[in-house]
Amino acid sequence: MNNIMDISRDELLLKLQGNLSEKRYNHVLRVETKAIQLATRWGISLEKASIAALLHDYAKEVSDEIFLQIIDNKKMDPELKKWNNGIWHGVVGAEIVKDDLNIYDEDILNSIREHTIGNIYMCKLSQIIYIADYIEDGRDFPGVELVRELSFEDLSKSIYLKSKQLIRHLSEQDKKIYPDTVITYNNWRN
Amino acid sequence: MNNIMDISRDELLLKLQGNLSEKRYNHVLRVETKAIQLATRWGISLEKASIAALLHDYAKEVSDEIFLQIIDNKKMDPELKKWNNGIWHGVVGAEIVKDDLNIYDEDILNSIREHTIGNIYMCKLSQIIYIADYIEDGRDFPGVELVRELSFEDLSKSIYLKSKQLIRHLSEQDKKIYPDTVITYNNWRN
Repeated sequence: MNNIMDISRDELLLKLQGNLSEKRYNHVLRVETKAIQLATRWGISLEKASIAALLHDYAKEVSDEIFLQIIDNKKMDPELKKWNNGIWHGVVGAEIVKDDLNIYDEDILNSIREHTIGNIYMCKLSQIIYIADYIEDGRDFPGVELVRELSFEDLSKSIYLKSKQLIRHLSEQDKKIYPDTVITYNNWRN
Repeated sequence: MNNIMDISRDELLLKLQGNLSEKRYNHVLRVETKAIQLATRWGISLEKASIAALLHDYAKEVSDEIFLQIIDNKKMDPELKKWNNGIWHGVVGAEIVKDDLNIYDEDILNSIREHTIGNIYMCKLSQIIYIADYIEDGRDFPGVELVRELSFEDLSKSIYLKSKQLIRHLSEQDKKIYPDTVITYNNWRN
């Protein structure tokens, strides 16, 4: 991991254990396993898949105050401030990863930014992290098996399915829907 | 209807019969009935409720070519061109009503613009048309009775319910979701 990251995988794992609850740390390891399987299937760098997976929730337990501060300091879209950890830990989390770990690989940073909300276009790595986070072996919800199988047959279709089920899940639970989630849904339909 | 419209209600009905299929014409009359009930309940002008209801689908059977032409001619947001009759007949339809009928009452025009997708804020008239279109007596879908009752008790909540069910319905059917529909949903949640 020399080119992409200053520290070794083991050092990164130690850092993650410090930042995350045990439950989340184990989720992150399962996302890595799944991301490496998908990267093998779809022919992209296993090293980048591993790093992006390990980092996707790097900022998940950062406090709201810090996120709000970074949004201001980095002059990010002020609209972001109306949202919450669910959105910030990806979009703003990528900035934290950049500053904490000196990682500047834009495919990896985009994978972190987009892993919850997706995007109109996503590089293959980002597609894989988006899906791996959703179907890692610890996930258990109606329909997960279908997305799991589909992700090895038709990656685009599995992305569409995640975005669709996400919208249905959020509306069922009367939760706010981040508009970009709908843009992802609209654009991966075909 | 002298102040708002140059023609009488009977002349407008004749015009609608010329523009719309019989089925849609009858739907429009049922929306008018419901809108007048709701306007009575919520204390707004019955006359405006009647006119807005009668006009809400005025452009529903206009051809795509005409809509696309108007979007260009009136310099409307070019993004609109990526959509379809379902969006155009409201947003662009209001322009057609303005030009065909010399109606400039912005509450009525906004009611036409917003009757499918809603908006962050809607005047009471627009709220009523948004709901009347959804629950007129010809509508029959799971949950319609609940929205019908709610619209006389808590108009905001009934608006939220329509936007929520619309998003669920569109995603169930794998149909594109107009982003403003989600903005409506997010903003009428409370």
